Amino acid sequence: MNPLPTYADVVAASERIQGHAHKTPVLTSRTVDEQFGAQVFFKCENLQRMGAFKFRGGFNALAKFTPEQRRLGVVAFSSGNHAQAIALSARILGIPATIVMPKDAPAAKVAATKGYGGTVVLYDRYTEDREQIGRELADKHGLTLIPPYDHADVLAGQGTAAKELVEEVGPLDAFFAPLGGGGLLSGSALALRALAPDCSIYGVEPEAGNDGQQSFRKGAIVNIEVPKTIADGAQTQHLGAITFPLIQRDVTDILTASDAELVDCMGFLASRMKLVVEPTGCLGFAAARRMKGELKGRKVGVLLSGGNVDMARFASLLAAAG
Amino acid sequence: MNPLPTYADVVAASERIQGHAHKTPVLTSRTVDEQFGAQVFFKCENLQRMGAFKFRGGFNALAKFTPEQRRLGVVAFSSGNHAQAIALSARILGIPATIVMPKDAPAAKVAATKGYGGTVVLYDRYTEDREQIGRELADKHGLTLIPPYDHADVLAGQGTAAKELVEEVGPLDAFFAPLGGGGLLSGSALALRALAPDCSIYGVEPEAGNDGQQSFRKGAIVNIEVPKTIADGAQTQHLGAITFPLIQRDVTDILTASDAELVDCMGFLASRMKLVVEPTGCLGFAAARRMKGELKGRKVGVLLSGGNVDMARFASLLAAAG
Repeated sequence: MNPLPTYADVVAASERIQGHAHKTPVLTSRTVDEQFGAQVFFKCENLQRMGAFKFRGGFNALAKFTPEQRRLGVVAFSSGNHAQAIALSARILGIPATIVMPKDAPAAKVAATKGYGGTVVLYDRYTEDREQIGRELADKHGLTLIPPYDHADVLAGQGTAAKELVEEVGPLDAFFAPLGGGGLLSGSALALRALAPDCSIYGVEPEAGNDGQQSFRKGAIVNIEVPKTIADGAQTQHLGAITFPLIQRDVTDILTASDAELVDCMGFLASRMKLVVEPTGCLGFAAARRMKGELKGRKVGVLLSGGNVDMARFASLLAAAG
Repeated sequence: MNPLPTYADVVAASERIQGHAHKTPVLTSRTVDEQFGAQVFFKCENLQRMGAFKFRGGFNALAKFTPEQRRLGVVAFSSGNHAQAIALSARILGIPATIVMPKDAPAAKVAATKGYGGTVVLYDRYTEDREQIGRELADKHGLTLIPPYDHADVLAGQGTAAKELVEEVGPLDAFFAPLGGGGLLSGSALALRALAPDCSIYGVEPEAGNDGQQSFRKGAIVNIEVPKTIADGAQTQHLGAITFPLIQRDVTDILTASDAELVDCMGFLASRMKLVVEPTGCLGFAAARRMKGELKGRKVGVLLSGGNVDMARFASLLAAAG
């Protein structure tokens, strides 16, 4: 097995994505600061290109392709932000991209992926295995498969957001980020351990899908059924072979948030901070709010990971937030 | 009559608000740039404190109070963002604030104004005259009345947003901002004429309330009935004695946008740029879109003026945007 990626890989990723990824703004809210009795810095990856941090990792991975890999192309399987990240990065770099998506994926997401120039291959999620389809396409056409999180270059790219955050606001005492497969969390932890060694680092999962929390406590990767949650970006069933050891080594704890808390945070971020954040993107903020009593006087980073939510769904969730 | 304010007043305002107002982010969208064939820079005053540019002018005006004025207090009449701007600025500066609001103002706005520590005086908008109430309170208690736009310090403060924009992205070829009473537009024009002398400057009104356009063309202030439009921040009936001559002198043209265009822009800004922008805040973008054929290859500034929209209303407008 290859050695685990290090902070040097995050630094290299940061140079590679420069001029392609947005250096997203860090926003603050006096209301939040007063509620917390702390300084809270929101890193707005919902304002990243294609609406989520995933562009960082996707672009970094593709930018490292050899000329031969570039010529043959990339394949990815995803129904969400990873698909768009790979399709857009591939278009920028002039690499042919094939994206394997479920037949019942939202039409808007399929259209967005095609809009970025990706070739979409649809599969039936009840009878077919997307990983197998992806691997077969890779073998048959010599494509390079880029998985959504368990990949050194992907997670190093994701770590660049936390790096930018600390470079802008200085060392943090605590940091909260959503946790799905662990690419964002493990990459962020690489950056934070280097730049803010005393920072407490929290990954936050949906309550219904706490496989990461179970794995962290057990010391081994736990698999779960696809969890029922509105946080569709964190419906992963297990951490990865690369992300898990990094999380075990560098992360302070894994927390959870309920769907009701996510809806409430989404409403607050829209009404008070004027930001559209998808439910998954609210995980970090929801957990930070829950433990705000312990954060008094501290400098807190909250990563808002994405804003890709269908507007009809967003409107109905806002109505539910009241 | 006092001489008209100049760019020096905008520079002084900019120093006064520093550390109090946010230096709001400038965002870009590749999608918009591709649609326009131009570089479009969005100055996000929806991300300003209290959710709108109005904080800049309100704070600047109050920061100039003499010790005697500070002790006696400020009075303002407004049902919208100006009320909150004065209440919040007064709280920061330790000045007692009285805000005259209509009895039927949204409960949320009354609550927000009280939340900032303002004393709210309610009046009946069908039988009472808010200006008279404001002036009576001013006379009786020695309060200083700060009007929402027709005031040198208010408009100089509003001009700081355009100043920041040009300082960040360089001289612009065209600039679009919402137009209500003209505080934002005339202040922006002071900054732009100094920093980007060749920039075309456009004020944008709701189609149903084009008093500014009529005034600009006629060469005299035209009064209209309260217009029916979803752009509630631009339901002004006439330009001001200070804002009008500045607009006449410095502005290129006054354009309009329909409510349907505002809804469409609001939906786009939410779904693609992840920003909550109130209908009034979309006026500049709507007009820029309409004339995008003439903007090819240009460097365009669009000021998104605010994001204070009730979430239930926002959700229903999003649903209408489809």
